Amino acid sequence: MPVLNDEVPDEGDYDASRRRGEFDNITPDDFIRGSGHGNPPGWMDSSEIDHVRREMPIVYVEIVPVRTDEFGRIDQVGTLLRVGDDSSIERTLITGRVLFHESLREAVARNISKDLGDIALPVLPVNLQPFSVAEFFPTPGVSRYYDPRQHAVALCYVVPIAGDCKPQDETLDVEWLSPAEVTRPDFLAQMPNGHDQIIRQAIAWAE
Amino acid sequence: MPVLNDEVPDEGDYDASRRRGEFDNITPDDFIRGSGHGNPPGWMDSSEIDHVRREMPIVYVEIVPVRTDEFGRIDQVGTLLRVGDDSSIERTLITGRVLFHESLREAVARNISKDLGDIALPVLPVNLQPFSVAEFFPTPGVSRYYDPRQHAVALCYVVPIAGDCKPQDETLDVEWLSPAEVTRPDFLAQMPNGHDQIIRQAIAWAE
Amino acid sequence: MPVLNDEVPDEGDYDASRRRGEFDNITPDDFIRGSGHGNPPGWMDSSEIDHVRREMPIVYVEIVPVRTDEFGRIDQVGTLLRVGDDSSIERTLITGRVLFHESLREAVARNISKDLGDIALPVLPVNLQPFSVAEFFPTPGVSRYYDPRQHAVALCYVVPIAGDCKPQDETLDVEWLSPAEVTRPDFLAQMPNGHDQIIRQAIAWAE
Amino acid sequence: MPVLNDEVPDEGDYDASRRRGEFDNITPDDFIRGSGHGNPPGWMDSSEIDHVRREMPIVYVEIVPVRTDEFGRIDQVGTLLRVGDDSSIERTLITGRVLFHESLREAVARNISKDLGDIALPVLPVNLQPFSVAEFFPTPGVSRYYDPRQHAVALCYVVPIAGDCKPQDETLDVEWLSPAEVTRPDFLAQMPNGHDQIIRQAIAWAE
Repeated sequence: MPVLNDEVPDEGDYDASRRRGEFDNITPDDFIRGSGHGNPPGWMDSSEIDHVRREMPIVYVEIVPVRTDEFGRIDQVGTLLRVGDDSSIERTLITGRVLFHESLREAVARNISKDLGDIALPVLPVNLQPFSVAEFFPTPGVSRYYDPRQHAVALCYVVPIAGDCKPQDETLDVEWLSPAEVTRPDFLAQMPNGHDQIIRQAIAWAE
Repeated sequence: MPVLNDEVPDEGDYDASRRRGEFDNITPDDFIRGSGHGNPPGWMDSSEIDHVRREMPIVYVEIVPVRTDEFGRIDQVGTLLRVGDDSSIERTLITGRVLFHESLREAVARNISKDLGDIALPVLPVNLQPFSVAEFFPTPGVSRYYDPRQHAVALCYVVPIAGDCKPQDETLDVEWLSPAEVTRPDFLAQMPNGHDQIIRQAIAWAE
Repeated sequence: MPVLNDEVPDEGDYDASRRRGEFDNITPDDFIRGSGHGNPPGWMDSSEIDHVRREMPIVYVEIVPVRTDEFGRIDQVGTLLRVGDDSSIERTLITGRVLFHESLREAVARNISKDLGDIALPVLPVNLQPFSVAEFFPTPGVSRYYDPRQHAVALCYVVPIAGDCKPQDETLDVEWLSPAEVTRPDFLAQMPNGHDQIIRQAIAWAE
Repeated sequence: MPVLNDEVPDEGDYDASRRRGEFDNITPDDFIRGSGHGNPPGWMDSSEIDHVRREMPIVYVEIVPVRTDEFGRIDQVGTLLRVGDDSSIERTLITGRVLFHESLREAVARNISKDLGDIALPVLPVNLQPFSVAEFFPTPGVSRYYDPRQHAVALCYVVPIAGDCKPQDETLDVEWLSPAEVTRPDFLAQMPNGHDQIIRQAIAWAE
């Protein structure tokens, strides 16, 4: 029974002890085998989530990781190199779905941890006002943001990274460049479907 | 075949002519009877949406309608009196789900129009940065926001209303009060589950 | 006795009746001739303000006037053509000093009225969080913003204009262009010293 | 020749090496004795600054120091106990004037350092959008903010403090309390003239 990668909490997870309401006594095992009396709450197999993706907007967080100086100014912006679904190399930001019963702060921390490793020491924002809300539509041209799989509403945050990055999973590398370098047209051209616009907005907002 | 009230576009709708991608040639009839070759894309019957509500966070907009003076200061805040699901009278703000392939701006305009009528003349914000993001969980106590039906992520906006209000549908009345009056503890006590907090934040943000 | 143009309230001013504390019984005449027992409070002659400009940061508002559609999206951005101090034509935004005992909202309204006329019908923002704070220094290169006369801290707002514009005073014309047009490099090159950056940030923030 | 306390840079200052344009070769000695050919640029004696305070709005920063948890949520809010001008004990936030040719980030860092000491390790915000702009008028009742000395425009920031606090100068103590405690009416009553409102707004904005 297929389980979406990021749906399975694990004992070693940084937030394994937090309270999750009805999820409190669910173990990863329940997610994989079911709990005897049906699947755990919130469980979605990949065919089901694919189905829902065509039916309602999905909540995402999208994170622009940065290195800042002692005055809070952005020194460097991080972008990720990953293996895409079609095995090509693509440049992205940190992005992920918010799970059922997961707070936005937890989703931000989890997705950073997943891509940059456990010692990245992200400095999460004091307030949750996103610098931008990016609306990805499955129809090209409706907005600057395009995602063929789904209609996603992505809350965008700039998050300073104070620790060390150890790229994880599908992330091959994290490249750190100055604000001037990441906003060069030839660099932004590597980030299609609106992720270039999110970088541009993050830099404009921070300066 | 039951259809959720707000899922059916109608020829007379203010935005009937906008492009909706794969929805372009769908008529309300298709929503009600199906299109012969299955239901239209995005169609959800009430049992299905109830199911999804227990599986993933749902995107909402929550709007604080206000009357402003010539300098943009809030003169009055509007709250709605509605008949709740259990037939009791409840006080609320304007709130609604964002539909598949609907932009946030369209969702804001549609939900205002649904509650306040077609000549409310809302002044939509120039930018979509919400003044707050309210996370409603189905488990009491996880956050200040509680919704027994679902995990909802509500983007909150203050929207000045320049026209006349004609309460519609389940909305019985719109009451306009000064910022000082709506932030009185006894008034806020009428708005449980965190909607009081959204009013409080809106006033604090605007002042 | 020289008096700075924008220091003199006038009976016909849109806000002539507002309360100004110790300024309440001051007439324009007092500003021009003095009140017998010395100059009125807040009075500054041009040599004095020039002196203060080299001693402390001066509070400014800088306004990006826009035309919006029914959904609040920016259709057009207005820029002003003016005769500069050296008689050359320059392209600017609406910008002005906040006066003693004047609120930011009043400064925004007054400066729009001064440049665009009395029937521009600006829609002032509900909250005063600026989309950017531009720090102009008298030393080139310290920041992106340069003003040889002074250190100015400019709170930047996007303000929709709902009425008609009648350029006033030094303003020769207001040109309305689409967001795509005003962010073209050749257009922005006409707005030196950081005003180009304010336009760029306004568009990035609003999209 | 009296010199305002916070006008004198010192060799040991954390930012002694930054470039200050025309201030670059000025020493503290010049401030105190004058440079032979008149006072240094930007120099203001107390009678002069008192005079300017009645003539134009003065730029301030006002900082709400907080302790945050690993998810960026506010755990505690710091308030300062100080000896006021009339020798009474008063409760305040961190607040100070922005100096000529000083950036907002430098003013935020300097004022935190002055009140909390050199090892407070403040985490300055990535962007300078204040959560509120407080307008203090010398006339009571014009706004929620009152300062008998001046018209001040204060840009308000929430700044997490990661290090240790060693109260300095006039600051006797820093008290750390939970958001629920600092927003209790009896506590806020200790912070008159609008500083209570800034705390209230900071908490509402962050939650």
